[in-house]
Amino acid sequence: MAGSVGLARVLEPAGVLPQAAWRLDASPEIGPDEVRIRVQRLNLDAASYRQLAGKHEGDGAAIRAEVCEIVATRGKMHNPVTGSGGMLIGVVEEVGPESPLPVKPGDRVATLVSLTLTPLRITDGLAGWDGLSEQVPADGTAILFGRSIVGVLPDDLAPELALAVYDVCGAPALTDRVVRQYPGNATVAVLGGAGKSGSLTLAAAKRAGARTVAVVVSEKEREALQGAGLADRIAIADARDPVAVAEAVGEPADITVVCVDVPGCEHGAILATAPGGTVIFFSMATSFSAAALGAEGLAADVTMLVGNGYVPGHAAFAVDLLRGVPAVRALFEARIAAD
Amino acid sequence: MAGSVGLARVLEPAGVLPQAAWRLDASPEIGPDEVRIRVQRLNLDAASYRQLAGKHEGDGAAIRAEVCEIVATRGKMHNPVTGSGGMLIGVVEEVGPESPLPVKPGDRVATLVSLTLTPLRITDGLAGWDGLSEQVPADGTAILFGRSIVGVLPDDLAPELALAVYDVCGAPALTDRVVRQYPGNATVAVLGGAGKSGSLTLAAAKRAGARTVAVVVSEKEREALQGAGLADRIAIADARDPVAVAEAVGEPADITVVCVDVPGCEHGAILATAPGGTVIFFSMATSFSAAALGAEGLAADVTMLVGNGYVPGHAAFAVDLLRGVPAVRALFEARIAAD
Repeated sequence: MAGSVGLARVLEPAGVLPQAAWRLDASPEIGPDEVRIRVQRLNLDAASYRQLAGKHEGDGAAIRAEVCEIVATRGKMHNPVTGSGGMLIGVVEEVGPESPLPVKPGDRVATLVSLTLTPLRITDGLAGWDGLSEQVPADGTAILFGRSIVGVLPDDLAPELALAVYDVCGAPALTDRVVRQYPGNATVAVLGGAGKSGSLTLAAAKRAGARTVAVVVSEKEREALQGAGLADRIAIADARDPVAVAEAVGEPADITVVCVDVPGCEHGAILATAPGGTVIFFSMATSFSAAALGAEGLAADVTMLVGNGYVPGHAAFAVDLLRGVPAVRALFEARIAAD
Repeated sequence: MAGSVGLARVLEPAGVLPQAAWRLDASPEIGPDEVRIRVQRLNLDAASYRQLAGKHEGDGAAIRAEVCEIVATRGKMHNPVTGSGGMLIGVVEEVGPESPLPVKPGDRVATLVSLTLTPLRITDGLAGWDGLSEQVPADGTAILFGRSIVGVLPDDLAPELALAVYDVCGAPALTDRVVRQYPGNATVAVLGGAGKSGSLTLAAAKRAGARTVAVVVSEKEREALQGAGLADRIAIADARDPVAVAEAVGEPADITVVCVDVPGCEHGAILATAPGGTVIFFSMATSFSAAALGAEGLAADVTMLVGNGYVPGHAAFAVDLLRGVPAVRALFEARIAAD
């Protein structure tokens, strides 16, 4: 195993990994295989920001105060209610002599591991943030472990765009791998094909030689995807309705990828997949037991993958897709402008 | 698709499959492709029983009352906290004229689909059960759909033994498949190797040519497994302690199978698995997000499989293992006697 997983930064409870910890040591002095980043901006997880904004009824100063308090208390931006974090952008300040990470001082980077496991210290009280959006200008320091993942920001993409791509880059990389392992030409169905992870997944599947079917929730999404050339067919269905999803996909897919962030999409994905096929769950709203028992209950011989957010080279792979497929870039830019 | 999936039995919410339903119609009148079983015994899922026993602090009467209430309320034995069910044994009472299932009235059978999707009516108040084990003598009726899985009980095995084997038969069958797909000789680590699914999984891995490492929780379990010839190495560790699990396994495994029915085993399994390896989660206590975010946070390039309880031929495969490996049979019989 290359590099440490940050156990030395865990203050309590002892013995768990940083993500499971209540409190981390965020001091800026680095160990021999750590990297210190000078933070420029936090990108709070959407679910986390929504919870904070709701609790404080949109009062920016109160939201800001609570984010400062969470970071001061826990040594990381780990929302205790939603359990989620986000990502950050910054500049590499110091690299320990034993760090295996491919960065040097001065590199502008985004962290590709969650803020829920990243030691973080805020030094400016978030004075430059009005508390009214997920994008948080910040000054302070963050620590990366030996076994962390970090992406150098591309020169040709706006930081917001790069962050949005990095946020979902596991899905297209894993889909590419599964399609290429498939004997013959696979049919890939993507539930939530018009979203960020969904459109990148469609583009990856198509480039790997698959026939693609997108399932989207509305006529508006169908129009957004139409003409992009990512899906050979687009069907409208509620992903939570198993029978509707199976009918929308039609001939069962060899590979079905779930990119819809709402609970209850497991059974539709299983029903829409051919015997011997594969379902990849990329939604954090997936229920393990609904997937396991659902497949058993349907006597469905399908391989079900937990969507791993890490595949070697996933960030570069996704950026390359974005650069090479203008339709994907246009979909992303429209989504970011609407946020 | 052969046979219906039971949509007509779903009372609420409308449109979902029986497993996802809150409430099923458990009335004993069968449709043309259904089968009615006269229930003799329920075998509660281990995670479900543990939750109920913990909640009621081992008070058998209170546990029994809650099981009766769940079945009466939901029309199925679907634990609302753990999301899991179990299986049942009974005698086929009536077979609809269009049923594709290979059974006839009078056959003694075990259901191989989860109780979470099986319409169930209890008529004896579980009077014959003390509430103190997962094995529940019961009188009542259960319904099988066209697309269900059912196993006729073998003549040479006690019903309790057959049921216990059927309950976990997905794990050895899927492990066999994954080991055989592996190029070269795989090392397989089994967390919870002394349990029912764990010992069958070890036996399957060994027969498929793998080197096997068992991780067990106590000296007592180590002794039970020692001499069975299923594990090339046995190590003691708390499966919830990631670093302890990784140290116990030693050289990372190519395939790690989680057969421990307690929450929090995801990170240890991931840490104990070699890059490019596979983790198979066969515990219903698995958290999807802990697995997905844990692998990302560890930059672990591992394939993570949701343990599908259905693999074609899984029941016969597991019974064959039990018959062929006396040590597995002895472990099962000891576990059943202890229950």
